[in-house]
Amino acid sequence: MDISSEFMRRIAGVAAAETLPRFRKQGVVSNKEQESFDPVTEADREAERAIRALIHAEFPDHGILGEEHGNENMASRHVWVIDPIDGTRAYISGVPVWGTLVGFTEDGDAVAGMMSQPFTGELFYANASGAHYEGPGGPRILSTRKTTRLADATLFTTTPALFKASEARQRYDGLEAKVRLARYGTDCYAFAMVASGSVDVVVDPGLKPYDIVALIPIIEKAGGVITTFNGRPAENGGDIVAAATPELHEAAMAALRG
Amino acid sequence: MDISSEFMRRIAGVAAAETLPRFRKQGVVSNKEQESFDPVTEADREAERAIRALIHAEFPDHGILGEEHGNENMASRHVWVIDPIDGTRAYISGVPVWGTLVGFTEDGDAVAGMMSQPFTGELFYANASGAHYEGPGGPRILSTRKTTRLADATLFTTTPALFKASEARQRYDGLEAKVRLARYGTDCYAFAMVASGSVDVVVDPGLKPYDIVALIPIIEKAGGVITTFNGRPAENGGDIVAAATPELHEAAMAALRG
Repeated sequence: MDISSEFMRRIAGVAAAETLPRFRKQGVVSNKEQESFDPVTEADREAERAIRALIHAEFPDHGILGEEHGNENMASRHVWVIDPIDGTRAYISGVPVWGTLVGFTEDGDAVAGMMSQPFTGELFYANASGAHYEGPGGPRILSTRKTTRLADATLFTTTPALFKASEARQRYDGLEAKVRLARYGTDCYAFAMVASGSVDVVVDPGLKPYDIVALIPIIEKAGGVITTFNGRPAENGGDIVAAATPELHEAAMAALRG
Repeated sequence: MDISSEFMRRIAGVAAAETLPRFRKQGVVSNKEQESFDPVTEADREAERAIRALIHAEFPDHGILGEEHGNENMASRHVWVIDPIDGTRAYISGVPVWGTLVGFTEDGDAVAGMMSQPFTGELFYANASGAHYEGPGGPRILSTRKTTRLADATLFTTTPALFKASEARQRYDGLEAKVRLARYGTDCYAFAMVASGSVDVVVDPGLKPYDIVALIPIIEKAGGVITTFNGRPAENGGDIVAAATPELHEAAMAALRG
């Protein structure tokens, strides 16, 4: 089954109503894990609640896997995967590179998904009709850049510090040394930039399904490739690499394998 | 003398007319330095040209120091300092954390300045009347957060790789280890977030005057402190640290001195 662009816009709307009024308002920030700093704001919880309500009303028999409020009805063929605010560190720092991620899977495959950034008024989404952008400058079809060589590529990662094992860090550094330009600090926004043709490669280790499922159809239907570092499907999360072209994806995987 | 908010808005407007239509359009990117990747786009050059024309028409006897088109009339008591696109790497990557920086100095002191981000529609500026924000959510007075301890602070830097000497890098890493949250990759936008109360400390080494002069009055009039790592005036650029409060600025400087 397919998800309409109209429903994508409704999801973006109810999420924005919770996230945007609290953005830069220094709301309550709690620590999800004690040792590391993983803030979960009231906006995060309320946005997921609103998205779940919308899905319940429209697709009562579908499953939902969300970052904040757990799993329900996971035996369904159709499961929604929600990260109400991907990039909570950017959110609490006032920088508009966070996004609301909602993916839709059929028999485990990500077939539709959206990323919305309400402060910039942007919606990136993909369904059976392809990959689409709506926002400043008007709507357009998303299409990756045709970069095939690492030497010509722009690479993004949230931070190299996420490569905790020294061997993995060395391989990441090896990849970084091969590209034209490396940048940090963007979370889901960098994946959207691959789909829209502004960035060539994104790598992020240790992702959860809700960090990535929504982005898979957007990358793929824009012409890109997204898998784990070993070339396996990205739907279950893990160490993820997205690239603008199959050739570039191969080259990035080869560098990351060492 | 003072610069009116109306003139700040006019500068932002003529710059946006050059930068925004070329954003995400994969325009011509040239290499300013051969060895490192320092793109200068057509947007960069045209925006500075437009800003200079506005200043020439309004203040014909003032000096101008710009990143793209050099210096003129530097003997004037009043000198404008322009970086048409600060964060060109973000610009060419499609990520809206770049900005147009225009500062105004009187006898060498930065007394007014503006940073505009046309994609988000934001203008941060300071003049004799204080530090101001205009953009989504409506206008407001800019005010730094009251954080005084590094342990409670959010720290931004463009990338730790800019600390090239190993001793400097070690001291930066020492600072990063003391803060609550460190993030990378934002250029001028992070300084604006200090003024607006979302970020506590920004450090960036090796800045040019045009990277920082515009931001000095914005930080200072919002309640923050901005100097070199040694506590000297930031107007000449160099290794720059901005902080939300005098106490936090002292603590950051102490860490950076090792």
